[in-house]
Amino acid sequence: MVDIATRVYNHNWKIDPIVRSVLDTDFYKLLMAQTIFRRMRDVRVTFGIHNRTREVRLADIVDEGELREQLDHVRSLRLTRGESTWLRGNTFYGKRQMFSPEFIAWLEGFRFPDYHLEKRDGQYVLTFEGPWIETTMWEIPALAILNELRSRGVTKGMGKFELQVLYARAMTRVWEKIEVLRGLDNLSIADFGTRRRHGFLWQDWCVQAMMEGIGSSFLGTSNCLIALRREAEAVGTNAHELPMVYAALADTDAQLDIAPYRVLEDWQEDYEGNLRVILPDTYGTTGFLAHAPDWVAGWTGIRVDSKDPIEGGEEAIQWWRARGQDPKEKLAIFSDGLDIDRIVHIHRHFSGRMRIGFGWGTLLTNDFRGLVAGGALDPISIVCKVISADGRPAVKLSDNPTKAMGPSEEVERYKRVFGVGRQAAVPVVV
Amino acid sequence: MVDIATRVYNHNWKIDPIVRSVLDTDFYKLLMAQTIFRRMRDVRVTFGIHNRTREVRLADIVDEGELREQLDHVRSLRLTRGESTWLRGNTFYGKRQMFSPEFIAWLEGFRFPDYHLEKRDGQYVLTFEGPWIETTMWEIPALAILNELRSRGVTKGMGKFELQVLYARAMTRVWEKIEVLRGLDNLSIADFGTRRRHGFLWQDWCVQAMMEGIGSSFLGTSNCLIALRREAEAVGTNAHELPMVYAALADTDAQLDIAPYRVLEDWQEDYEGNLRVILPDTYGTTGFLAHAPDWVAGWTGIRVDSKDPIEGGEEAIQWWRARGQDPKEKLAIFSDGLDIDRIVHIHRHFSGRMRIGFGWGTLLTNDFRGLVAGGALDPISIVCKVISADGRPAVKLSDNPTKAMGPSEEVERYKRVFGVGRQAAVPVVV
Repeated sequence: MVDIATRVYNHNWKIDPIVRSVLDTDFYKLLMAQTIFRRMRDVRVTFGIHNRTREVRLADIVDEGELREQLDHVRSLRLTRGESTWLRGNTFYGKRQMFSPEFIAWLEGFRFPDYHLEKRDGQYVLTFEGPWIETTMWEIPALAILNELRSRGVTKGMGKFELQVLYARAMTRVWEKIEVLRGLDNLSIADFGTRRRHGFLWQDWCVQAMMEGIGSSFLGTSNCLIALRREAEAVGTNAHELPMVYAALADTDAQLDIAPYRVLEDWQEDYEGNLRVILPDTYGTTGFLAHAPDWVAGWTGIRVDSKDPIEGGEEAIQWWRARGQDPKEKLAIFSDGLDIDRIVHIHRHFSGRMRIGFGWGTLLTNDFRGLVAGGALDPISIVCKVISADGRPAVKLSDNPTKAMGPSEEVERYKRVFGVGRQAAVPVVV
Repeated sequence: MVDIATRVYNHNWKIDPIVRSVLDTDFYKLLMAQTIFRRMRDVRVTFGIHNRTREVRLADIVDEGELREQLDHVRSLRLTRGESTWLRGNTFYGKRQMFSPEFIAWLEGFRFPDYHLEKRDGQYVLTFEGPWIETTMWEIPALAILNELRSRGVTKGMGKFELQVLYARAMTRVWEKIEVLRGLDNLSIADFGTRRRHGFLWQDWCVQAMMEGIGSSFLGTSNCLIALRREAEAVGTNAHELPMVYAALADTDAQLDIAPYRVLEDWQEDYEGNLRVILPDTYGTTGFLAHAPDWVAGWTGIRVDSKDPIEGGEEAIQWWRARGQDPKEKLAIFSDGLDIDRIVHIHRHFSGRMRIGFGWGTLLTNDFRGLVAGGALDPISIVCKVISADGRPAVKLSDNPTKAMGPSEEVERYKRVFGVGRQAAVPVVV
């Protein structure tokens, strides 16, 4: 039997929206938003899209009209009653009332602010200007929309069975990775793949496959909407935007020098427990750890992001030991360019030496490499980053200069202040 | 939205039937049935299931109660009005009114006769006794039921995503074969996979994938129901049961000797055009061709079944030449144990030398080899063959002694009468 109402509803869609909920975003955005809401809601921050994979000319693949329709649709979204109830009533990392009533009330009234879109050299220049608390919310939906519109552009015109086989191949690939994960003891891995996903439905599939395939080894998903619908844990902590804005707002080099630790001070006041995970690489991990106050070593864990994972993990272990901490009680979260071989390698290397967790992104939710001709569905390295705060340029150095951002004279100043010497460039896959 | 009615209908099923239509059978059964109806409707023929893959103990895998339920369900089927209309109104091989009004009237009243079922040595002994015209109809549904119940037995208890990935893998495998077929010029290939299919839905998928994937190179399907629903050609001609029964009914060795040609005489009277395809191997191809009357060489083509396909095709070419025929105007249909490599090999070998066609069975509709542990879904070599006609044992020699059937003293007599010497045994894969 055909469900007539569903069919009619579907064929009357003006568009098929990519982002259908305020909660179709990463959990860490809400955690960061709450801190911004409490402390910095009047700071004005500009975010901008940056496609590091220059050879993929998004503006040639994605229709501007369709992109505007999708972005406009996001601007029409409001937190629903059930979503608000979930934020109020659910436990996150075992804790109730993670979000204050004031913050949730703000989120209930939140509408996405306007965007600025133009084309330049085959790429979209897509920026968001306004109060930090509003513009920060655009990062994930903007990236998810660009990635999914690209997928739709490539799959348009494919036959029904050709499409089914495309997804059959992608499913098989994910499942084969899951079968490898099954062989790892004491695994703890989460989906971090919202921003770079092939599409919403696909991420939803991947999360459910992980739930069935590895059971309790699957910690949860960064995607709030999927966590809500699939009754999974919502996971995540914070990102580079916090130190980048704190640093941009510093009036002097001395203030700049301590900005990354001020982020942690504020965060510590706002959150505790599993959420106290250091993200040390914004201006170079080694310097950050060397100059960190002792209380930072008391935090739960560290996220090893832009550094080689083995090197970064070893550095953390040595640092904890030097600060009188027992690494076995500490947590290291790996989240950069992970794929199954790297996960297995890291897991084997550190097993039993500290607690480890994985935040698996692009190559979980968008591994369509080689599945269509010319690699047209291979994932691209696209980000949405802070460009400026209150009119001052924002800078990121990272442990990998390929990922550095900001005007070059500012980059040089930051390198001097943070004592960052020569860095080895590593190609960014995803 | 949930389609409530469909869900309620589904969860109220007493069983989930495997065979849901009288037309869920191979087209050649209807062609043969019409000839039987015209000429031999009072002959009593016993059919029996034979599982050549002894190591797969079907009676341990397939529940007897479920098997009886499925067989009983088939006994409740009647040709529907729409199915009857299709048989009356459709063209087959470009011809209208392939079936006489009398035969269709008979088919409208047809009910499957009773069956006899017992277990022996881990196998089911499943036999059908009665008028040939009725028992012949059991071959395909009985095989399809046994194969699908085995599949269901193996897949029972698998997780939802594990199952989805199982089918994703199988789909990918079929599609990769289709991609190879696309590279073959002037290909003509049909689905012959009803009897050994993994399941009905799976065969239906494979047929549709072939339709999309190779377009007009896909000649059609042997399955009448799928041909009807998917608006594909229904294809097929005849099978070993005709010469086997004709031979069994022969009173003398002299009558036995000419029985295979009598089949063709009758068939020629009943059908013409593309349907005049010789199946020469029942009692040895070489002897059959050597002793064939000249008018047999005037037929459209030959089916190369149990013989090595290259050898069998070359033999046909030489025979046509010797009989003054132009092989380029002839058709050879290959249908034995085909898989993609063999298809490509045969196609390359005979391309341009004669018209060729492929009837692709088990490894199109049931290639789940290695997809579950222990090869539990690997296809088995199971057949439903004539055991006796009017109380006399039926015999098949074939070009491959592994496929021979009948009491050994009768086999010896047939070999003597048909002048069949030593034959090389070839393992039967499927």
